[in-house]
Amino acid sequence: MYNSIREECGVFGVYSKTPTAVANSVFYGLYALQHRGQESCGIVVNDCGVFSYHKGLGLVNEVFNSENLSKLPQGKIAIGHVRYSTTGNLTASNAQPIVVRHVKGPMAIAHNGNLINALQLRREYELKGAIFHSTSDTEVIAYAMTEARITSGSIEKALETAMGKIRGAYSLVIMSAKKLIAARDPDGFRPLCIGTLPDGGYVVASESCALDSVGAEFLRDVLPGEIIVINDNGLTSIRTHCGKKGTMCVFEFVYFARPDSVIDGFSVHQARIKAGEFLWQEHPVDADIVIGVPDSGLDAALGFAHASGIPYGVGFIKNRYVGRTFIQPAQGMRENSVRIKLNVIKKVVEGKRVVLVDDSIVRGTTSGRIVDLIRNAGAKEVHMRISSPPFISPCYFGTDIDSKDKLIACKMSTSEIAKHIGADTLGYLSAENVVRIAEEAGTGFCRGCFTGEYPIEVPDEMPKDKFEQKLVE
Amino acid sequence: MYNSIREECGVFGVYSKTPTAVANSVFYGLYALQHRGQESCGIVVNDCGVFSYHKGLGLVNEVFNSENLSKLPQGKIAIGHVRYSTTGNLTASNAQPIVVRHVKGPMAIAHNGNLINALQLRREYELKGAIFHSTSDTEVIAYAMTEARITSGSIEKALETAMGKIRGAYSLVIMSAKKLIAARDPDGFRPLCIGTLPDGGYVVASESCALDSVGAEFLRDVLPGEIIVINDNGLTSIRTHCGKKGTMCVFEFVYFARPDSVIDGFSVHQARIKAGEFLWQEHPVDADIVIGVPDSGLDAALGFAHASGIPYGVGFIKNRYVGRTFIQPAQGMRENSVRIKLNVIKKVVEGKRVVLVDDSIVRGTTSGRIVDLIRNAGAKEVHMRISSPPFISPCYFGTDIDSKDKLIACKMSTSEIAKHIGADTLGYLSAENVVRIAEEAGTGFCRGCFTGEYPIEVPDEMPKDKFEQKLVE
Amino acid sequence: MYNSIREECGVFGVYSKTPTAVANSVFYGLYALQHRGQESCGIVVNDCGVFSYHKGLGLVNEVFNSENLSKLPQGKIAIGHVRYSTTGNLTASNAQPIVVRHVKGPMAIAHNGNLINALQLRREYELKGAIFHSTSDTEVIAYAMTEARITSGSIEKALETAMGKIRGAYSLVIMSAKKLIAARDPDGFRPLCIGTLPDGGYVVASESCALDSVGAEFLRDVLPGEIIVINDNGLTSIRTHCGKKGTMCVFEFVYFARPDSVIDGFSVHQARIKAGEFLWQEHPVDADIVIGVPDSGLDAALGFAHASGIPYGVGFIKNRYVGRTFIQPAQGMRENSVRIKLNVIKKVVEGKRVVLVDDSIVRGTTSGRIVDLIRNAGAKEVHMRISSPPFISPCYFGTDIDSKDKLIACKMSTSEIAKHIGADTLGYLSAENVVRIAEEAGTGFCRGCFTGEYPIEVPDEMPKDKFEQKLVE
Amino acid sequence: MYNSIREECGVFGVYSKTPTAVANSVFYGLYALQHRGQESCGIVVNDCGVFSYHKGLGLVNEVFNSENLSKLPQGKIAIGHVRYSTTGNLTASNAQPIVVRHVKGPMAIAHNGNLINALQLRREYELKGAIFHSTSDTEVIAYAMTEARITSGSIEKALETAMGKIRGAYSLVIMSAKKLIAARDPDGFRPLCIGTLPDGGYVVASESCALDSVGAEFLRDVLPGEIIVINDNGLTSIRTHCGKKGTMCVFEFVYFARPDSVIDGFSVHQARIKAGEFLWQEHPVDADIVIGVPDSGLDAALGFAHASGIPYGVGFIKNRYVGRTFIQPAQGMRENSVRIKLNVIKKVVEGKRVVLVDDSIVRGTTSGRIVDLIRNAGAKEVHMRISSPPFISPCYFGTDIDSKDKLIACKMSTSEIAKHIGADTLGYLSAENVVRIAEEAGTGFCRGCFTGEYPIEVPDEMPKDKFEQKLVE
Repeated sequence: MYNSIREECGVFGVYSKTPTAVANSVFYGLYALQHRGQESCGIVVNDCGVFSYHKGLGLVNEVFNSENLSKLPQGKIAIGHVRYSTTGNLTASNAQPIVVRHVKGPMAIAHNGNLINALQLRREYELKGAIFHSTSDTEVIAYAMTEARITSGSIEKALETAMGKIRGAYSLVIMSAKKLIAARDPDGFRPLCIGTLPDGGYVVASESCALDSVGAEFLRDVLPGEIIVINDNGLTSIRTHCGKKGTMCVFEFVYFARPDSVIDGFSVHQARIKAGEFLWQEHPVDADIVIGVPDSGLDAALGFAHASGIPYGVGFIKNRYVGRTFIQPAQGMRENSVRIKLNVIKKVVEGKRVVLVDDSIVRGTTSGRIVDLIRNAGAKEVHMRISSPPFISPCYFGTDIDSKDKLIACKMSTSEIAKHIGADTLGYLSAENVVRIAEEAGTGFCRGCFTGEYPIEVPDEMPKDKFEQKLVE
Repeated sequence: MYNSIREECGVFGVYSKTPTAVANSVFYGLYALQHRGQESCGIVVNDCGVFSYHKGLGLVNEVFNSENLSKLPQGKIAIGHVRYSTTGNLTASNAQPIVVRHVKGPMAIAHNGNLINALQLRREYELKGAIFHSTSDTEVIAYAMTEARITSGSIEKALETAMGKIRGAYSLVIMSAKKLIAARDPDGFRPLCIGTLPDGGYVVASESCALDSVGAEFLRDVLPGEIIVINDNGLTSIRTHCGKKGTMCVFEFVYFARPDSVIDGFSVHQARIKAGEFLWQEHPVDADIVIGVPDSGLDAALGFAHASGIPYGVGFIKNRYVGRTFIQPAQGMRENSVRIKLNVIKKVVEGKRVVLVDDSIVRGTTSGRIVDLIRNAGAKEVHMRISSPPFISPCYFGTDIDSKDKLIACKMSTSEIAKHIGADTLGYLSAENVVRIAEEAGTGFCRGCFTGEYPIEVPDEMPKDKFEQKLVE
Repeated sequence: MYNSIREECGVFGVYSKTPTAVANSVFYGLYALQHRGQESCGIVVNDCGVFSYHKGLGLVNEVFNSENLSKLPQGKIAIGHVRYSTTGNLTASNAQPIVVRHVKGPMAIAHNGNLINALQLRREYELKGAIFHSTSDTEVIAYAMTEARITSGSIEKALETAMGKIRGAYSLVIMSAKKLIAARDPDGFRPLCIGTLPDGGYVVASESCALDSVGAEFLRDVLPGEIIVINDNGLTSIRTHCGKKGTMCVFEFVYFARPDSVIDGFSVHQARIKAGEFLWQEHPVDADIVIGVPDSGLDAALGFAHASGIPYGVGFIKNRYVGRTFIQPAQGMRENSVRIKLNVIKKVVEGKRVVLVDDSIVRGTTSGRIVDLIRNAGAKEVHMRISSPPFISPCYFGTDIDSKDKLIACKMSTSEIAKHIGADTLGYLSAENVVRIAEEAGTGFCRGCFTGEYPIEVPDEMPKDKFEQKLVE
Repeated sequence: MYNSIREECGVFGVYSKTPTAVANSVFYGLYALQHRGQESCGIVVNDCGVFSYHKGLGLVNEVFNSENLSKLPQGKIAIGHVRYSTTGNLTASNAQPIVVRHVKGPMAIAHNGNLINALQLRREYELKGAIFHSTSDTEVIAYAMTEARITSGSIEKALETAMGKIRGAYSLVIMSAKKLIAARDPDGFRPLCIGTLPDGGYVVASESCALDSVGAEFLRDVLPGEIIVINDNGLTSIRTHCGKKGTMCVFEFVYFARPDSVIDGFSVHQARIKAGEFLWQEHPVDADIVIGVPDSGLDAALGFAHASGIPYGVGFIKNRYVGRTFIQPAQGMRENSVRIKLNVIKKVVEGKRVVLVDDSIVRGTTSGRIVDLIRNAGAKEVHMRISSPPFISPCYFGTDIDSKDKLIACKMSTSEIAKHIGADTLGYLSAENVVRIAEEAGTGFCRGCFTGEYPIEVPDEMPKDKFEQKLVE
């Protein structure tokens, strides 16, 4: 709500031992992953090889209702996707999973991530006669698999070959006529985990909170580079592309993931508490109360309070009816949009020296308004603490931290930003400590957006508008 | 409404001399072609090579509104499509025009017809790595063109090559970055005509009534086998595949086309008047009044009345609010659905010997109910006259006359049908005369559904459910 | 479509011997009466004294669907209403039937007509403490009944008393806890008829076509001034206010009613045929073809053709998908709206002397465009014949012929109008003959809009915007 | 979400010095009051005496959009309402404000509360000829005012008289052609406050958080029994019915009101913190962590933690996309609905002795599921603390605590409830202390639902289904 940094996608898949209303499980799973993408969603059900699907623009409980869910047949396998995407325009046509038919039959793919060689591959396939309907990377992955499938003995072998071609961040959930397949790129940029169902079936999901939502038990994370194949014989693993420790996006821990998820073995909530503790160590301050900016600053504020001994308080009430589509009837009231979503509890901050904890500052506008709210409510001092380092470089791996000229930290020093947003002091978590908030996790971290150093070679420039056709839905 | 025989599509394209609100012209054109397809529609606009589109399930004025039309940019070229289809499920994904990007850039295709070698071609492309998103023939045409485009100097050359591969009925409107292209299969199964705009631009449309709706002047029909290319240099013609006189679907004249259209040089209304005249010659009867079944039986009834000297009367009032989505709240009232749509004017038929003219009998159920209505209103005799021959064979060229077991004329003699529907006498237009209703038109005719003899070789059996994936929208 | 003259309402009621899905019957009845009002509609069901209802803005099959119809309970009595109204703004709040609760229990009222003393009565009730929620006359009728009910032994007695207070045009269908009541004003301005159901129940409706739609048999018209009471004991009649022969609105026969209805004993279709015959007698012309403007000019054109011996032709095709909500995307194309709805069949009029028959001319704009269409299609001469006299005076009895300054005939002579609309000659049906088109009907006629002489005293001026509150739905 | 206890309404009104887009202010105000009623809402604008309105079923940002807001005219006065109601069915017809016209002109009323003599008054008015359209108390208030208005010199005088007749809980916002009026019942059961606008205008609202949302400054609370009149001359007060200290519903502080509101001089958030502190004093326990049930248990949990010294933790993540219309596709999954909305952060509770704080227990079902969630996540002990006393008696003053047989505390002892919900211990705030959580507020309290003793005489039984007509929207 207060950040323009957005994750691109969440994926979910289920394999049931017996035909059942698998669409409902996917619905619940996507509902738990809604924070990973609010623009479109879709579910594909496999009923003995016949694929049925429904996709649309909107939130999971806007796109799906009991009527269309009940029209989807029962089956053993189903996959789903929620999407916010920096690649491809906002259109129903780009909604995932994509469902295609190739030489060996039907296939559905749901993808979270971003390829860095999508344009080159697309060009290569076009030169062989390929036709592209959408503007998403997912169609490129489909072609890479289809090409390999012609000479491969199985879909997982085709995927293994395709993973030798595609480069970048991808967590995939794929469905063929008889198999549910999950795969994670060799660097493990985006999370992906496996759960078991009471009936002996399996679930795969971007985050463990989605396993909880369907009553699945967490089994393990998919390894960086691993391909998981689930069919009637159970689960098998292909590890040809495995080997790296992984460079998970650290911003998943800072902001993207849900606090109740456990990613690569570490609790997101705990990581945020730790971020708050580090923040206190790095930027201590004499104050009367610590408050967090809802919702994503609350955990770090609690960590800061615990570490510092300064009391933790509830400073803001967020209007819980704020929806995706909140309207701004009056032009002149637009600057008040923060006030409509957040209100200060005066009693809590009046006359106090306040530590205000948030997860990030992108352009500075929202942070400035929030500091204003606190001051207008009578705070004597406002000390802003940010539970991540300043953004200074674009992200190539599936988020929309894409352009230096929108990032305030590329243009101002920390003290200038403090002045700009009206804070008495401002402290960011350091790039050294940000990777320590989850250091017990079984993965390394990508912190390219904070340092400009990326785990794999990135293109010279960020491609924009990869493909030119537009849709008006 | 009273027939289960449905046309599959209508196509429309516009090339304006200067960038303008071309989407509006397509909207009006599609609106005039609505009778050719009520299930989905779409418009694609080309704004300097960037394609923008909107497609959806529903009637033209349900899918489009001033808001989404105004979001489509201005441009010089645009194409559109209305669809009822026997190929591909009813889904937004199968809505046309399809918009794809291939090696030489973007392309949009709108197609009316049916290929008889679509399955073979699809298999062939799949074996080369092709991926299919939809279940329509149009995607096969796109692959045929894309394959040829790699080695062709232009899109029209690629189409020329592709037309050597695809077989069946097709009237195409295609848009590339800079060209509007129209083509008709070498047999000319489906209509396609060209008009000129006051500003020097061009319009192509399935029927001339759509030219009228945008104020275009009729120029000429596209020839069987002809490719028309329109760009800034004007209109050029490629006639490599021309030569045949054409075998236009005669049912276009009997039922599909709008009476105010002129097809291949002949007025549809006049053809229907003639059909009524032939009916009188073939099946004269002593009667008091001639009435037509609205709307498509009215013209032939007028022809019958003129030829016979029996007075023409208005026997039925059709509820003008009957929509596509008329609901049947009560299970038990379903048999009354004809009564809800049609009501008899008692005064007109009471105590009379009535000649009742309709365009066709498919299963006989609706005809039986209509005869009942007339009898209940007090008609002494009911003489049914049908302005086309009995259906005895499936259609392979783009209509849904698809299966012998649904066709009453395959199972009963004419006198048995008369008895079945409760008519005193029943007379069909003969297969000899049906092609004479428009004999002054510059085309021959396909009357395969009436004779089982087709102008080109047809498959042994009618493929059903070509592709298995389903969609739940 | 081509007239701005609109009827205000249609009413329907059903009394079933046993509890059944009465809402469905009302649905079908309203569907048949849709031409009498397209702006809102509603159904109220009485399930053992508990009234349930659904009302909304839109056509019957837009407002109702199988879901909301199935939510309405079964019952023995139900009433419904379709509305276009000159009194009260277009809002859901003004949708009828109105459902109220008064001292003796619940009551629902559906009203077709217009009171001429509504404002006085409203003021009178307000002075006694009454509160008005809507801006429709129906609430005034409700108060008149409620006031009388306190001292009356029954609802029909209360209505009898109320009918002594309210003046103007009203055809009412009223439902109480145990009764279905129908009543018509003493002058019988608007139609109302009774039918019997196969199960022994009754139906009341504005027009007989609605009886047909539910399989009811026509019993008789409600007499001017009559109150009909239907309950478990059957049908009884109160005739205190009866006595006048009636002065039915003659424009019901000319335009409002459906041709398949029989009103006060005479067929609407026959009346229109007769209007065409009188037109030929009054304004003969040498011509080649007679065509009618769809839909309401067609019958009179047929009568004109029969009387004159000039051939009857189909000159126009009306787009059958024209809906209430047809959009005009481009400002500049607005003048073409007639062209989009109507297209000429050139072959029929080209080079011909055409007699063009329509039911009325209001402002002249539409008529002018239609004449243009015919001329552009190549007609040599265009002779306009109008099956009613010129409008010269407002209507106080339930139509929107409300203001002299919009009526072309108040400003121009017939020859000036002919010139204005571009016709070679123009002939109106005379005020003498208009009442003869249905002279065998068992009623006299009001033709105030053609003569300025009304059957009852009318107010000095037409009240506008009776009440000031507005609604934005 | 987790309680079946619901407030019935929120009211809002604005008086601007100059005509402006007052509907927008009401929109923002209602949006801030959304928690007081989610079923319907409405806005009425007064543009120089002409009232325009829009009302509908749904949330504020579902019912209103920029299109319909922009259709509402500018004006100086406007009022609005959000509604959840125990009186009157859920229908658009019962949406408020109600807009009526009486002898002195138009009036709009928005009401929060519940009358205890509504039925008697309704009967009394019916006997005088009154007609009721809705089933809400608001119409009764309108009649009481209208009756008085006939003999009163002003609308405020009429209200003063009416307040002598109506008994129960009511906070009213009323608009006449020239005045904005606010009034609170003599016992002050429901909150109502006044704010000033920068332009010199005034705002009245159920809670102060709505003043904040439009940038108004808090002026003061409306006194119990006070009538506030705002017009061009400013604000005046009528205190005829004043005198009591007030018996505000204490559950407003416990649960209904937003924590950022200040009611009768005391901060709701502070009251909840205090409730947590009292809970610790009354029911201390040895534990490792204190967690609250989102959202309404969080403040009391913080108070409990502060008072006890036990660490405060975040134990639950609530899915922030939970909407009013969350669907339950699978019958079998219904019992998991809590799991879908709430998920436990395992790390926080695993192996811990947990104090779980919630605001109330109604039926016990939800509480049992929440305890289950915590136990399944590995908590060693679960000590439930409830920040209000047990419900043992119905509420007559505007909430839906209506029937003893649904209240678990009427059927079980505290230890039985503890066992029933699976908690190791259970402690409720005492009825003595619940009124002390806001003892510095300038009002007394009603705690009838906790004690069965009410500040004013209540009916013998709770009337249900006051009026029988139903609506199916």
